[in-house]
Amino acid sequence: MIKITLPDGAVKEYEKGSSAMDIAKSISEGLARKVLAADINGEVWDANRPLDNDASLKLLTWDDNDGKSTFWHSSAHLMAEAVDATFPGVKFWVGPAIDKGFYYDIDLGDNKITEDDLASLEKKMNELAKQNNQYVRKSIPKAEAIQYFTEKGDEYKLDLLGGLTDGEITFYTQGGFTDLCRGPHIPSTGAIKAIKLTSIAGAYWKGDEKNKQLTRIYGVSFPNQKELDEYVLMMEEAKKRDHRKLGKELGIYTMDDNVGPGLILWMPNGTVIIEELEKLAKETENAAGYKRVVTPHIAKETMYLTSGHLPFYADSMFPPMEMDGEKYYLRAMNCPHHHKIFDAEQRSYKELPYRIAEYGTCYRYEQSGELFGLMRVRCLHMNDAHIYCSKEDFAQEFKAVNDMYLKYFKIFGIDKYVMRLSLHDPEKLGQKYVNEPELWLETEELVRSVLIETGVPFVEVKGEGAFYGPKIDVQIWSAIGREFTLATNQVDFAQSRSFKLSFTNQNNQPEIPLIIHRAPLGTHERFIGFLLEHYAGKFPTWLAPLQVKILPISDKFMDYANTILQTLKKADIRAEIDDRSEKVGKKIRDTEIAKVPYMLVIGEKEMNEGKVAVRRQGIGDLGTKPIEDFVLEIVAEIKDRVSD
Amino acid sequence: MIKITLPDGAVKEYEKGSSAMDIAKSISEGLARKVLAADINGEVWDANRPLDNDASLKLLTWDDNDGKSTFWHSSAHLMAEAVDATFPGVKFWVGPAIDKGFYYDIDLGDNKITEDDLASLEKKMNELAKQNNQYVRKSIPKAEAIQYFTEKGDEYKLDLLGGLTDGEITFYTQGGFTDLCRGPHIPSTGAIKAIKLTSIAGAYWKGDEKNKQLTRIYGVSFPNQKELDEYVLMMEEAKKRDHRKLGKELGIYTMDDNVGPGLILWMPNGTVIIEELEKLAKETENAAGYKRVVTPHIAKETMYLTSGHLPFYADSMFPPMEMDGEKYYLRAMNCPHHHKIFDAEQRSYKELPYRIAEYGTCYRYEQSGELFGLMRVRCLHMNDAHIYCSKEDFAQEFKAVNDMYLKYFKIFGIDKYVMRLSLHDPEKLGQKYVNEPELWLETEELVRSVLIETGVPFVEVKGEGAFYGPKIDVQIWSAIGREFTLATNQVDFAQSRSFKLSFTNQNNQPEIPLIIHRAPLGTHERFIGFLLEHYAGKFPTWLAPLQVKILPISDKFMDYANTILQTLKKADIRAEIDDRSEKVGKKIRDTEIAKVPYMLVIGEKEMNEGKVAVRRQGIGDLGTKPIEDFVLEIVAEIKDRVSD
Repeated sequence: MIKITLPDGAVKEYEKGSSAMDIAKSISEGLARKVLAADINGEVWDANRPLDNDASLKLLTWDDNDGKSTFWHSSAHLMAEAVDATFPGVKFWVGPAIDKGFYYDIDLGDNKITEDDLASLEKKMNELAKQNNQYVRKSIPKAEAIQYFTEKGDEYKLDLLGGLTDGEITFYTQGGFTDLCRGPHIPSTGAIKAIKLTSIAGAYWKGDEKNKQLTRIYGVSFPNQKELDEYVLMMEEAKKRDHRKLGKELGIYTMDDNVGPGLILWMPNGTVIIEELEKLAKETENAAGYKRVVTPHIAKETMYLTSGHLPFYADSMFPPMEMDGEKYYLRAMNCPHHHKIFDAEQRSYKELPYRIAEYGTCYRYEQSGELFGLMRVRCLHMNDAHIYCSKEDFAQEFKAVNDMYLKYFKIFGIDKYVMRLSLHDPEKLGQKYVNEPELWLETEELVRSVLIETGVPFVEVKGEGAFYGPKIDVQIWSAIGREFTLATNQVDFAQSRSFKLSFTNQNNQPEIPLIIHRAPLGTHERFIGFLLEHYAGKFPTWLAPLQVKILPISDKFMDYANTILQTLKKADIRAEIDDRSEKVGKKIRDTEIAKVPYMLVIGEKEMNEGKVAVRRQGIGDLGTKPIEDFVLEIVAEIKDRVSD
Repeated sequence: MIKITLPDGAVKEYEKGSSAMDIAKSISEGLARKVLAADINGEVWDANRPLDNDASLKLLTWDDNDGKSTFWHSSAHLMAEAVDATFPGVKFWVGPAIDKGFYYDIDLGDNKITEDDLASLEKKMNELAKQNNQYVRKSIPKAEAIQYFTEKGDEYKLDLLGGLTDGEITFYTQGGFTDLCRGPHIPSTGAIKAIKLTSIAGAYWKGDEKNKQLTRIYGVSFPNQKELDEYVLMMEEAKKRDHRKLGKELGIYTMDDNVGPGLILWMPNGTVIIEELEKLAKETENAAGYKRVVTPHIAKETMYLTSGHLPFYADSMFPPMEMDGEKYYLRAMNCPHHHKIFDAEQRSYKELPYRIAEYGTCYRYEQSGELFGLMRVRCLHMNDAHIYCSKEDFAQEFKAVNDMYLKYFKIFGIDKYVMRLSLHDPEKLGQKYVNEPELWLETEELVRSVLIETGVPFVEVKGEGAFYGPKIDVQIWSAIGREFTLATNQVDFAQSRSFKLSFTNQNNQPEIPLIIHRAPLGTHERFIGFLLEHYAGKFPTWLAPLQVKILPISDKFMDYANTILQTLKKADIRAEIDDRSEKVGKKIRDTEIAKVPYMLVIGEKEMNEGKVAVRRQGIGDLGTKPIEDFVLEIVAEIKDRVSD
């Protein structure tokens, strides 16, 4: 018998060799039908894989991220089976699950495939799914695996095999399709009830443009048709709200070949939004006791050797500039410069928590193929800050930062969010993570307990921390239900050591501070991209680049329109007159398209009575009122940052 | 006879071979005594040099910059004569006039000289000056000059001779000292009545650290003792107000070896000043119809080839970063990025003048030996803007920019300023200046006429324009009379051509805009450096990092102090409590030193009456008043940006 510990802490005994599925069935047949995989001692396993030892077990379903990932990975195999059946002899590279769905990279040989062929491929996949074939796992000696793929003439899988250790190699077979795969997989293809192949792209083998270009087919799948329908609807809505389309239409940003890919030029309308976000950040941080600093975007190589960005983060940094016999790097993060500000003066516990914020610009190298609108860029701005505090102050400071996140979510109408606590991986200490095992555990526990105490929804993820400490990524969902990774909030026990930062504590002894890295609005680039989708470009008045458009119904009313304009400007309202010789209907239509929150229509009656006829974008006529009343109302709306 | 045209346009006839001095004497003996040199057809000549042809002539005195330069250059020769007399056989490299004074680089051989020796050197110079020896110019064939310095064993002058053309070589002799020199010089040493040798420094031969280090002796000289005394006084005051000293004491900025030389880290106090300056700029520019943009700090090489920064400005740029097979450069100016914003949409005359402003950061390479505090840095921030306008709008726009400068001067209490109009040099078209001779003349005349019309003081300088058009440098004088080059204001007819910028004019035809480059507050670095000296660190309240310090006379009054603090914060006043257990006298002294404009002393009486005892930094007790009254007063002072 083996002892199985369930998530609620209960321990039950099962026959040795029982699988997670056996255990699920022993609990309830209904539950078993939902099981896609199992978390065994923190590792995801096939639900049918026999358990030979005591273990902790968590059954994974569609409601778990790991359940979804397994489902999509199995869907990738299903797609490969369909492709293999359609074009016998094609070769497969890798086919992982991604954030939303899956892909497979395929060498189609002389075969061609276009988006038009995806429907028939979906049909084939549905047929194969209905066969409800099991995903069968089989351990294979390396020599045998090499022989298998040599006979097939598959140089891709042979290349993968080169990196694998004998004794750890497995094949998975469903129906007539066998693949080299570490797994895990769902029990059988029948669970895949709804499939959508979404696009085809070229992808260089191993991401290297000197290699052959393979065909990448993207898809997504679900356990029922309803979820797929909802997904398709969301994606259609997302397409309408595409931040790249809206960004251009609304004059938010542009890019230019001569400046370079991933380098955003913020147009005047986008800059208004940036400045409003910064104003919000400054107000919030000022009230929370932050001070502001301005630091350069470059530093010597020595600084990044000290910080550990070299070598831990080197791949994401721009190449160096060689000057006066030294290497200078564009910064990828603001932290080292802030540490130097902290270190510029002798610090006492009386100054702590020392909170410094900057409208910081960083440069990160992303492969050109990875760049995407405002979502993945090479030059990024953020309202960044670092908090230097004692261990005793940490919980309170960290909680205050968390509260700031929640305050922002409320302002922007973000109802759904999850904090994703990324931890270190003990096996990669000294490689991906600074080698301080005890400090890792200690700070991870500090963060965890604050999260539990404040009751915000969070999940834990092993092996995704920053190299200097545990990290919280904030996942948020836009108004149409799409998920975005927004901001980070990181604890750092390592850099204060490497920079030899210290303060004099109450016992007049030097003490090393903890550092909190935080950027609650994330990068301006990604956040504004998110907001474009979230608001469908209809920014709330306080954020709208142009807040009011004055529409005189003829040139006769231009003087009165100008008086109104001056009144609005005096109240710091961003306003313009539409002075074109167009009919007022046309003016209203154009202003609606430009998504300006308010229109003030001006004619004979309004002029004579000193009033304005107010229209709200997307809503319509709000009636005629004295200009003073309108100003009072809109000023209050802006001041309160009303978002609806 | 030759015809001489005087500055007032009068033409007089003189004997062929007459000198400027002869002409001066023919006008008035008193004038002749003041003459230091003469401007002959735009070139500076010895006053005693014979004129053989018709010419335009302007007599140069101490009141002319060229007169001063000649005086200081002659003083350098006088110093060399004194050094040569003290240490026979030493060798001289070059000895130019500089902004304020002169220096000479000397190979002292085995001789040593320290700052203590400067007084005896001054004494020797005064003796030689009293001999009133003439500076005698003599043309020398190159072979003869080479023979002369070969016999002296002077490799330095031989090196200089290597670069000179036979027939253009002159020697100058005063008393017993002869030097290879292009001249010009003042008539005789007697005019040099007051001398101060200010410092000694090492200087690598030709500025190359691989070469031998020479000894550079700096000095300054005047035609009378009074001016020297005033200068010495000003320099002593400048030393007290040294922006590097105050910058550290007041927590304005810091630098760090691991970041790099010339890269300023703005501490919280300095950042407050930057943000107040930017706020002023935003308010001013918003009212003047500017829009704001945000652009990256880098761009591809191709952009700078288009703009002409490569090659015209290459020496001042950081080295490139090589990425994805392309070269990227840190920008040295913001203009090309702004041109791309202009070019991102089809522009119509209705949108012009199109004015875009940015809190722009640039990186310029300066030799490490040239770096100096905030005055010469490698990373610079500025409130920069570019105005795209038609030729018809130019004069009005340019005048508006000029008016903005004057508005700023008033706010900062800058009473003395001169606009320095830098023109192109026709001989360097195609090398230092874009090769558009007619556009140069046309735009120079446009700028000149606006300057004349607005009546601002200005001077013209040939050969110092930007490569793309005429430039106005603004010279300002600090409260203690030191001169600073602050801001620039440039006209650009060239970049709109190279970037193919155009707008649709009223006739529906494409037209090329003129561009005005302007940064009226210059770089934040230099301007804040200037302000530190100008205000001696005692910033006016609106700019002061900390505006009010609350000084409770004992812990008993901390609650009341906190109430006051909250009241001040609510009114957006930067305030702090001095909560140390110190006597109030000590608290006042420390706050005085920290140059905080206002102190509010809080004791029993103040608490009971709801009042505060107000002290003004540097002035003293202003009496006790209700906190509400104080808030009203200080808020008004801040809003009006009172500077006194």
